[in-house]
Amino acid sequence: MIKVSILGTGNVATHLFKAFSKSDEIEIIQVIGRNKKALLAFAPENKTTSDFSDLKESDVYIIALSDNYIKTVSEQLTIENKLIVHTSGSTPMNELSHHQRHGVFYPLQTFSKSNELDFKKVPICLEAKSKEDLALLKNLANLVSENVYEIHTEQRKSLHLAAVFVNNFTNHLYHLGSEICEENNVPFQILSPLIQETARKIETLSPYEAQTGPARRNDSNTITNQLEQIKKPELKAVYELLSKSIQATYGKEL
Amino acid sequence: MIKVSILGTGNVATHLFKAFSKSDEIEIIQVIGRNKKALLAFAPENKTTSDFSDLKESDVYIIALSDNYIKTVSEQLTIENKLIVHTSGSTPMNELSHHQRHGVFYPLQTFSKSNELDFKKVPICLEAKSKEDLALLKNLANLVSENVYEIHTEQRKSLHLAAVFVNNFTNHLYHLGSEICEENNVPFQILSPLIQETARKIETLSPYEAQTGPARRNDSNTITNQLEQIKKPELKAVYELLSKSIQATYGKEL
Repeated sequence: MIKVSILGTGNVATHLFKAFSKSDEIEIIQVIGRNKKALLAFAPENKTTSDFSDLKESDVYIIALSDNYIKTVSEQLTIENKLIVHTSGSTPMNELSHHQRHGVFYPLQTFSKSNELDFKKVPICLEAKSKEDLALLKNLANLVSENVYEIHTEQRKSLHLAAVFVNNFTNHLYHLGSEICEENNVPFQILSPLIQETARKIETLSPYEAQTGPARRNDSNTITNQLEQIKKPELKAVYELLSKSIQATYGKEL
Repeated sequence: MIKVSILGTGNVATHLFKAFSKSDEIEIIQVIGRNKKALLAFAPENKTTSDFSDLKESDVYIIALSDNYIKTVSEQLTIENKLIVHTSGSTPMNELSHHQRHGVFYPLQTFSKSNELDFKKVPICLEAKSKEDLALLKNLANLVSENVYEIHTEQRKSLHLAAVFVNNFTNHLYHLGSEICEENNVPFQILSPLIQETARKIETLSPYEAQTGPARRNDSNTITNQLEQIKKPELKAVYELLSKSIQATYGKEL
């Protein structure tokens, strides 16, 4: 039985809580958060507290808070000789070096509280100061996910950067596409199968191989026509830069 | 029984041929293409030809060729009083006005010959010069897809532009993400669940609501750090422009 406490009540804390609750080999000791209203979602009530100095004994304390609070909160924790980890992609492990036993438990996924997802598929990237604690984190992670990786701070930083490209920026392209549809009274939903297939394709092809479209085939006619079609300067700038970037990627082939 | 002839042997022609072949109510009369080797994939052999003047009688002739060839090939066709359509997102319907009966049969999906896909889910965007021919195209499209739309030339043009953003540009962001992973010896596959979830999310949330990340929450600290992390100027430019574009999208809220 692994005893776990969660600090935080946001999206990551919520999904960790749900995933841990499903395992018979994990005992959630406490959920700790300042926001009393948010704590109500984490039943039973006697296992939640807003008092960060009132921590019960666990094997692992998981700080699932915004990057800005990780260091401050970790330094407030008065527990000793226990493993403290954070869940952040962009925060170095040594932000927790105030505590002798520290590490990282980073679930690489986009979470929203309302969205149900299969946690077994969520990649969990682990790092720990000591081998023993890495083993403990692996045991814990393997109980909730099939995709567990050992990833050190520098690699995690680059994964987090890559995630900004494939998740945040991609979602913004969906938004720009939906704006174009709206302006022309076309339902954005028509594009949904295309969006799903674009994502599905790279499970069997590399994105390099999967690339199609006017910029890929150097079709300057279509590029010129589409640039004329776009009225907003900001949208034109995105179209131009990404087309150039695609052309540069494949230009080496010419 | 609807009689159909396909002009072309590329990705779109291949997927249409497969989808039409599955229906008992569609008879494929002929596949016409210059490339004799490519024609071999379209059995039986006696139904294929490389002679564009040797067309047998069909109800609908589908020109599934590159945009550049649509007009020229359609003007070479000597058939009369038959419906001629193209399959292009960016070509106006009236490129076929050489023929009295003309229209568009645009399947909005990314096709590669090797990739199996469920054609029933592919949105088909229809347009026709006459009501009767629109009805004929609807009958045909409904036999192979559950997502049939009537979309006029201007709307189709904007859909095609939006598709470039959500498909071509999105795939390029996947590629940029994979480059970042490669440079740092992290397997790109770790990001696959995130990519799939990003696409899946917008089936229940608008992309506007689904947006997360440093630019969305105006986290200038992380943005500065990530910009420092990126070495290639071209990659930096993409990061900067898309971050600004996200900030501008949500800036109105402040």
